[in-house]
Amino acid sequence: MKLKVTTNILTANEKIAEGNEKIFADAGVFVLNLMSSPGAGKTSLLEQTIIRLKDRVKVGVIEGDIAGADDAMRIDALGVPVVQINTGGACHLDANMINEVLGDLPIADLDILVIENVGNLVCPAEFKLGEHMKVAVLSITEGHDKPLKYPVMFQESKALIINKIDLKPFLDVDVEKIRRDAISLNPEITIFEVSCKTGEGLDAWVAWIETLIS
Amino acid sequence: MKLKVTTNILTANEKIAEGNEKIFADAGVFVLNLMSSPGAGKTSLLEQTIIRLKDRVKVGVIEGDIAGADDAMRIDALGVPVVQINTGGACHLDANMINEVLGDLPIADLDILVIENVGNLVCPAEFKLGEHMKVAVLSITEGHDKPLKYPVMFQESKALIINKIDLKPFLDVDVEKIRRDAISLNPEITIFEVSCKTGEGLDAWVAWIETLIS
Repeated sequence: MKLKVTTNILTANEKIAEGNEKIFADAGVFVLNLMSSPGAGKTSLLEQTIIRLKDRVKVGVIEGDIAGADDAMRIDALGVPVVQINTGGACHLDANMINEVLGDLPIADLDILVIENVGNLVCPAEFKLGEHMKVAVLSITEGHDKPLKYPVMFQESKALIINKIDLKPFLDVDVEKIRRDAISLNPEITIFEVSCKTGEGLDAWVAWIETLIS
Repeated sequence: MKLKVTTNILTANEKIAEGNEKIFADAGVFVLNLMSSPGAGKTSLLEQTIIRLKDRVKVGVIEGDIAGADDAMRIDALGVPVVQINTGGACHLDANMINEVLGDLPIADLDILVIENVGNLVCPAEFKLGEHMKVAVLSITEGHDKPLKYPVMFQESKALIINKIDLKPFLDVDVEKIRRDAISLNPEITIFEVSCKTGEGLDAWVAWIETLIS
């Protein structure tokens, strides 16, 4: 019974996601769904990416949070179009929530639209939004056991950003194990190690994004 | 429509949770539901708590994870009874999952049963398991914006453990803001600052737990 309900929700979501896909294709915008645990650094990564891209690439953002507009205000301060979705309790964005806010963004003028999902290493990976790719962010402070404990996130993502590597000297964390386990779950995954605080590794990530949208 | 489905699941869960409550009352065991984001340190806190309690208090553990048995093996190494639940994709434990494993634990012999939930700062707070209290763990590496962005977790918890305070010198984090926002959401919440790595703050937490089960 519970499984049936879940299946129905996912099927309904998939239909709306297909509609979003068509809207994105018509607008010629590349769409990235950014996912992680709470506090892994999605918004910081987005800020640093926008700063490096915005002179050459037109970026737009949809922020997803259960409550509040802190993240949208951080993005707005960078001068790029942004819409905040409050899910009102739901632990992930779904395709319908995205569909409802597309009219509030100049999507035909954008090169890339980044959707920052609700902080959650589980459910966001199961709900298609109509995006071209999913990207997972994992902070090394979360520990090296995370890929095997939350496999779907790593299986569904085209890239993995391993963030906060500036903290490596102060942690007992095996970053090689994170890489190894992520690749065992998803041999095609592209992995970047970055620090949004020091800037290390961000140029390689931004260059990779540019190859995808050019 | 979507809301209706959710309400039905929550209502069904509540009934089973009431059954669990009765089983726990008959067994005379105090039950704690431990929740956090992935990697905030629930298992480390549990290990450190067991080490400090186990000579005086009989502890049992239910581990909840989407996949794997790493956490149960860590607890088993301490010589306390433990059962691992794999949710097979579900992002939280529910009352029925707990009910199904109670026969695998000597609950009538236990003083305290700790249920370590799936790493997720959202959904676990909404599903009663029949526990006496919920406790939230937040690592300072997750940032000081988390209580206001994930309010239900902090509203539902009787205590908040602020973990990894040994990393404070290396982070731009305002721990006072975490305290202030958690208290604004839940004036009755008891807050502990700890480091499971250095042991700082753990004695106060363990002493508090002992007052609850004595």
